[in-house]
Amino acid sequence: MSVEDKSRNAVVLLSGGLDSATVLAIARDQGHRCIALSFDYGQRHHVELISAKKVATAGGAAEHRILTLPIGELGGSALTDDSIDVPNASDKDQHDIPITYVPARNTIFLSMALGLAEITGSRDIYIGANAVDYSGYPDCRPEFISAFERLANLATREGVEGDGFRIRAPLVDMSKADIIRAGAALGVDYSLTVSCYDPSAEGLACGVCDSCRLRANGFEMAGVADPTVYQSAG
Amino acid sequence: MSVEDKSRNAVVLLSGGLDSATVLAIARDQGHRCIALSFDYGQRHHVELISAKKVATAGGAAEHRILTLPIGELGGSALTDDSIDVPNASDKDQHDIPITYVPARNTIFLSMALGLAEITGSRDIYIGANAVDYSGYPDCRPEFISAFERLANLATREGVEGDGFRIRAPLVDMSKADIIRAGAALGVDYSLTVSCYDPSAEGLACGVCDSCRLRANGFEMAGVADPTVYQSAG
Repeated sequence: MSVEDKSRNAVVLLSGGLDSATVLAIARDQGHRCIALSFDYGQRHHVELISAKKVATAGGAAEHRILTLPIGELGGSALTDDSIDVPNASDKDQHDIPITYVPARNTIFLSMALGLAEITGSRDIYIGANAVDYSGYPDCRPEFISAFERLANLATREGVEGDGFRIRAPLVDMSKADIIRAGAALGVDYSLTVSCYDPSAEGLACGVCDSCRLRANGFEMAGVADPTVYQSAG
Repeated sequence: MSVEDKSRNAVVLLSGGLDSATVLAIARDQGHRCIALSFDYGQRHHVELISAKKVATAGGAAEHRILTLPIGELGGSALTDDSIDVPNASDKDQHDIPITYVPARNTIFLSMALGLAEITGSRDIYIGANAVDYSGYPDCRPEFISAFERLANLATREGVEGDGFRIRAPLVDMSKADIIRAGAALGVDYSLTVSCYDPSAEGLACGVCDSCRLRANGFEMAGVADPTVYQSAG
């Protein structure tokens, strides 16, 4: 690969969800050769990783890396700890940090992405962080993204000696409906994505958790047909 | 464990080397209940982890966690990639970033430590970063430590809703001789530690790599007897 080719590389964090599938399409549309990066981190459901693989292929990622991280071993979140129940929409105050919060998750994910970016010559790291609908997660806010970018450029050889890194969070200020409209315009196949916190073994969405409700409402507000198959529809 | 006990918790990054052994002693001396954290990240030599276990026990850590991280899978460093030779002291300019640099290593280590700190109620995270003798590593500088602390307090529930985290790098401005003097005064058993980039399978130091020379010189300058056993001494 020539130096010129390398400069097109970008690392794209890919979860298998709706947001990161949209981010992959945006990064491709901006001319990048995309290195998709997913993590096996003790999620309760491997459905997410199966979706991530499908999204990486359909979305035109040049490579897809899946790295195993021991975040689940730390414990402390409803998303990785079987002893904590996943809440439904009525359980939480909209302004609290939700129980599905995973300590330091985006910091850990971006750190790994930073290492991969430096090694692959990527200058751009894309993340589907969104502060509008998920305002409860501190590590999805614009000030977190800016602070990480600053850190990245102090922490690395490329940051100190080269042109540095840019952390791209194109969805950060968008509503779910805006995200779906943008992705639909770029041809994202949302039927491959999974948003549910508690899907069936076959990957069918529950339709009642916070994430399912937000997603369904997003399609409705966007005026885009919702391809999600729910368990109750079976 | 009561709330009062939890507030004494601190996470201490422990590599099995001389610096982090000293940091563990300092954290204990400052009254902390220490949760030592080491990583199996594709180091070329497991000698480091064996040393880390001995140091955790001898140094009075309350717990010792060893987490596996896929940093080696990223490639790109003489410390994790067998295809790159470890340099000896004559190979590098003192002001360059050395080939033993591992992309984003301290960012990744501190991110995992941050997750563990939040879950264990720890407010202090100790790291043996040192900017004097290893000035080539960008992620060992005081400005990196400050930027990470700022990030930690934007990224987490504790940072946003609680008292926040402090990243402690007590060695950052100390010479190797100062570090050895401080550790010796606190009773650190340096015979348990390993600094060599290229030890034998039994854990004996090579005596010629950068790290061995820096260590040997540190003991000499500190006026402390050097307990290191070298391969050539066998």
